[in-house]
Amino acid sequence: MNLLAAAAGHGIAPLLATLVAVILATKALGEVAQRANQPAVLGELVAGVLLGGSVLGMLDPADPVIAAFSELGVIVLLFEIGLHTDLRALARVGSAATTVALVGVALPFAFGYLVASGLGIATVPALVCGAALTATSIGISARVLSDLGCLASREGQVVLGAAVLDDIVGLIILSVIAGVVGGTPVTVLGIARTTGVAVGFVVAAVVLGSVAAPPLFRVVERVRTSGMLGLVALAFAFTLAYLADLAGSAMIVGAFAAGLALHPTPQREYIERATTSIGHFFVPIFFASVGASVELRALAEPSALAVGGALVVVGVVGKMAAGFAPFWFRGNHLLIGVAMIPRGEVGLIFAQMGLARGAITPEQFGALMLMVLATTFVTPPLLGAIATPTPDAALTRDVPGEGGIDDLVSGTAADQSLVD
Amino acid sequence: MNLLAAAAGHGIAPLLATLVAVILATKALGEVAQRANQPAVLGELVAGVLLGGSVLGMLDPADPVIAAFSELGVIVLLFEIGLHTDLRALARVGSAATTVALVGVALPFAFGYLVASGLGIATVPALVCGAALTATSIGISARVLSDLGCLASREGQVVLGAAVLDDIVGLIILSVIAGVVGGTPVTVLGIARTTGVAVGFVVAAVVLGSVAAPPLFRVVERVRTSGMLGLVALAFAFTLAYLADLAGSAMIVGAFAAGLALHPTPQREYIERATTSIGHFFVPIFFASVGASVELRALAEPSALAVGGALVVVGVVGKMAAGFAPFWFRGNHLLIGVAMIPRGEVGLIFAQMGLARGAITPEQFGALMLMVLATTFVTPPLLGAIATPTPDAALTRDVPGEGGIDDLVSGTAADQSLVD
Repeated sequence: MNLLAAAAGHGIAPLLATLVAVILATKALGEVAQRANQPAVLGELVAGVLLGGSVLGMLDPADPVIAAFSELGVIVLLFEIGLHTDLRALARVGSAATTVALVGVALPFAFGYLVASGLGIATVPALVCGAALTATSIGISARVLSDLGCLASREGQVVLGAAVLDDIVGLIILSVIAGVVGGTPVTVLGIARTTGVAVGFVVAAVVLGSVAAPPLFRVVERVRTSGMLGLVALAFAFTLAYLADLAGSAMIVGAFAAGLALHPTPQREYIERATTSIGHFFVPIFFASVGASVELRALAEPSALAVGGALVVVGVVGKMAAGFAPFWFRGNHLLIGVAMIPRGEVGLIFAQMGLARGAITPEQFGALMLMVLATTFVTPPLLGAIATPTPDAALTRDVPGEGGIDDLVSGTAADQSLVD
Repeated sequence: MNLLAAAAGHGIAPLLATLVAVILATKALGEVAQRANQPAVLGELVAGVLLGGSVLGMLDPADPVIAAFSELGVIVLLFEIGLHTDLRALARVGSAATTVALVGVALPFAFGYLVASGLGIATVPALVCGAALTATSIGISARVLSDLGCLASREGQVVLGAAVLDDIVGLIILSVIAGVVGGTPVTVLGIARTTGVAVGFVVAAVVLGSVAAPPLFRVVERVRTSGMLGLVALAFAFTLAYLADLAGSAMIVGAFAAGLALHPTPQREYIERATTSIGHFFVPIFFASVGASVELRALAEPSALAVGGALVVVGVVGKMAAGFAPFWFRGNHLLIGVAMIPRGEVGLIFAQMGLARGAITPEQFGALMLMVLATTFVTPPLLGAIATPTPDAALTRDVPGEGGIDDLVSGTAADQSLVD
């Protein structure tokens, strides 16, 4: 026993063991995934499944410290993605992204509800099944596209825009379903308010951020304390994430808006490099936690397998159809549809909410888990098969090993170049 | 309310607000301290006092997540210090460091016990007072020396070695005092065992680490996953910290040993740069937490002021005398003695342990708090007044802005150079 730590009232030795296991397992399996020509994130998710309660029981995503690390990871990730996103390029594909998002919510919701009802599930749990199918994991989609080097392509921008809108729409659906499950009446006014707050926040954050950020960072650049620029940028991202939460939106929407606002600043490259090192530490904890949330036992029930299998099919078909919805868009529609498939942590949140409030049975939870798992794990290899990397230098320029999102998420032999 | 976060069972929004406050306050006051020709760490400690329960109540060092961040901060800091320490240079001043450590424990303990007894305090609380005076905050001492650019000087090496030994001795005293307070008999065998484990651990870690680290990092360097080298080095430090805890020693002793073991590897410079960025985030949380542990109210009692004042005097005199104890050492003895003065978080741990077990009264706790506060805050300006920076290129080479401990702890205009 460590008396010093015990006397101070906290022993973090078990946390250290967990962090070591997460670091080594995510990096080792990420490397294995890459050598098999798969994105590194696939290996990190598998590492999480292995470390989680289903297998080794070393990583508990509900532990408050791990949960905090994981959320900081997804906040840093979305900040980096925003930092890398040219708002004008995003706006150019705005109508296509909006169409993909709306169709990608409506179709899976309708399909999911109908299939679940058809299999004899009652109305409320069937609504939860439909809702869980609407989600898109922006973290996983963006990272897979980045791993494949096509986050900056026009298709990548459509997926990014649609996934952000999906997060906002998902938030609205979640609040509505939570109301239905809780028995509170759902009003049009309430839905309109949630929507307005979420959309308004991103617009306000980007507008105000674009005005305030350049003079702020000009001042910060002048001070002498080391590490200042990267830390202040991180504080800026945390602040917008906090305000987004306060406004009733999602923290990751705020972090993404912070990145968008800092994209045009001249300090962007340095900010990217500083926050990437911090992301190297936090981001794998997020992906491992997503993997650790998977309970393999819940998948073993035959009824869960039947419902889950049906949900996987409509979940894949619904999102792929959404990719073809913006018929006027010239580009790889299949790529867009497939990139929208993974439900990841957002789908898990719907399922957990439903189970916690007694709206769905453990078997139905198992079915949703199977759907989340299958859609998340099937996407990286599918995308790898159909994507052709199209580096678009006009949109972003990101050299692996130079810091930035490519360095954070992909798996190039980046580090050795820095040793020299 | 953030439904997504609430559904997932954790809302980290308050944590984000705390982190933003800590980042901005430590960096702003660190900058103020530097402009007043004081080490940046002084500003970070003051920032902690202001954010803590005594003033703003925004930073609770007992919060599990903050405590975890803070401990990771001191682990990363000690790892960086070890990484920067040439074991051969440390060994060359080994006899002087050992003498400083032992005299610096014996004199303050005796003085503290006698003064407390003389002021009418009973035996057990007087023993706690003496024990609290034995500590040296290696984190604060090393950082002040680094801020002043003389961590690599021979005096700096003596202080570093003595402070590490102090941590080991402090651990032994803490376990003995905890036994006395708890009423369990203290045996020579028990003390010998604790001592043997702590000393043996450092020796074993450095020997085994030096054998295992070079081939391990040669393999790691060959893999393609980005961020690998820095993260594996961090995992190595966490592992040794964990093992140190398991062996009954202090985690920071393990982290320091990990740094020592990696010092001779060719990848050291890159490891330093990668871990420094992570340290930029975690280390200020540690110093702010030390500041936030100070309860200003406990200092207001007249009896606390009287006992505390007396303890400050013997605390300063005892450690300064220790600086002059290795009479054969040619160098600035005053610098060594002054650098040993700050009790920092280690002194607070003694005081908290005593209060929690009912061994000391709240007034006596206030007196110890005053002693810790005064010795911690008086050292940076004192050292600044007597130190003459002597960069010793043979021992280390650390350019501010290039990563490494100087970049982590000092406050040079380092970052702008990286923007270009």
